[in-house]
Amino acid sequence: MKVYVIGIGLIGGSMALDIQALDKDAVIIGVDANENHLGQAIELGIIHQKAELNEVVDADFVILAVPVDIALGLLPKILDLVTDETLVFEVGSTKSPICEAVVNHPKRRNFLATHPIAGTEFSGPTAAIRNLFVDKTNIICEVEKTTFKLQEKGLKLFKDLGMRIRYMEPKSHDKHIAYVSHLSHISSFMLGKTVIEKEKDEKDIFDMAGSGFESTVRLAKSSPAMWTPIFKQNKKQVVKSLEEYIANLSQFKNLLESGNYEQIFHEMENTNRIKEILNGK
Amino acid sequence: MKVYVIGIGLIGGSMALDIQALDKDAVIIGVDANENHLGQAIELGIIHQKAELNEVVDADFVILAVPVDIALGLLPKILDLVTDETLVFEVGSTKSPICEAVVNHPKRRNFLATHPIAGTEFSGPTAAIRNLFVDKTNIICEVEKTTFKLQEKGLKLFKDLGMRIRYMEPKSHDKHIAYVSHLSHISSFMLGKTVIEKEKDEKDIFDMAGSGFESTVRLAKSSPAMWTPIFKQNKKQVVKSLEEYIANLSQFKNLLESGNYEQIFHEMENTNRIKEILNGK
Repeated sequence: MKVYVIGIGLIGGSMALDIQALDKDAVIIGVDANENHLGQAIELGIIHQKAELNEVVDADFVILAVPVDIALGLLPKILDLVTDETLVFEVGSTKSPICEAVVNHPKRRNFLATHPIAGTEFSGPTAAIRNLFVDKTNIICEVEKTTFKLQEKGLKLFKDLGMRIRYMEPKSHDKHIAYVSHLSHISSFMLGKTVIEKEKDEKDIFDMAGSGFESTVRLAKSSPAMWTPIFKQNKKQVVKSLEEYIANLSQFKNLLESGNYEQIFHEMENTNRIKEILNGK
Repeated sequence: MKVYVIGIGLIGGSMALDIQALDKDAVIIGVDANENHLGQAIELGIIHQKAELNEVVDADFVILAVPVDIALGLLPKILDLVTDETLVFEVGSTKSPICEAVVNHPKRRNFLATHPIAGTEFSGPTAAIRNLFVDKTNIICEVEKTTFKLQEKGLKLFKDLGMRIRYMEPKSHDKHIAYVSHLSHISSFMLGKTVIEKEKDEKDIFDMAGSGFESTVRLAKSSPAMWTPIFKQNKKQVVKSLEEYIANLSQFKNLLESGNYEQIFHEMENTNRIKEILNGK
């Protein structure tokens, strides 16, 4: 198997590691704008060799795993280069813009839009880990626009990586992911900001931080280069989710100010069912 | 060693388990308003026997580990009962109200106000776990108001449980803990609420939730009976932290609406240093 990975970070790098484990003969070729990352990826055994983007001609898979703004520019160029046998798929957190970017591309049928719901707060080649995708959901959009034999090829790979598949419309994906992913990141970033602003004497105060704070603020470690274009591309839905979140926080504050502790208890009790919802996943 | 644990939940139960491991001859006696919890605690080997509150007379330690509103009522009654040899300490997440509640109590010197920064989102006796307190911070307030020999007794126990000690004024504790703990809980509860409200078709949508959402929303599983009185007792500081959090979220929303992506990048980059701050803990 010959695989080009464009962007050797958490997602691209982790896929590369798993593909090597699945197929001992796989040749993994890395393309990255960052020369240091390419060097690290070779040292870490994530890729076998490096290449330039214009060398991406014949391959079984081209995995496009770069920030979503960069992906919009690279995808058409990659599709221009590849042969009929190559499946190009990208893995970004927004799906409408990338699908629109290639809607009229002559090689549209070589492309599959995916979003593996997997990751950590870390980035770059050193963040790549084995088995990241086991039991995770991979959301696939506009599957019918991909050649059937390349669909099959992609689905087999995702299954071998351990993922379950869900099919969605790009617009529907972007709407719901704003709530279950993008909003969580902003909530976490702004919590981190609020606490850092408040606490000048950091050493003293963060001694008081427990595992609860660490968990809630974990996503504030995420990469701004990755997340700024996601928020930009999904602006409308993210703004809407933020408005609803802010309204709920303001209402909670009002309940607290007016001393309505019965309703505060009720709000929390109602939300406790997130337990069962997440267990049922 | 003879220890009464009033409230056999996550904190009281976990302390009971660790004390048994530290001292094979320790006798742990449980007091709890919930008969089922007492039964469970005996079955799980957390306590050896149960008792009524008025039997709490002679002991090495009385650990008061109940919701902070209940603690306000129970602490004076417990102090009325105990002998000079007994250290009574409570472990609640607010410190000013409990210190004020016993400021003039004749047995004030038998009492130590503590806040072990340790826990999970679970509650009740089944949530009790071994080694919960290892490498955690225990915040002690008004240490000088406790008899010296009982201070020593308490500090030895906390050290044996694996905790490091920090001394703070009750008011200072309550102010800072609003940011690093109480605000995180509200942020998480309201995130859970916003997503649940939005997503009627829960099964479908929570398939899209990744580990990021789970981490950010984890605290929304917490007990309303424990958290309502905490918010009530620390109302002023919690409202203030909420105001600042809402202002930061609104500013982020405005930046997004006006398309100021440079500043959005900058905001996230600035907050990324939460990484080093938490590592430095």
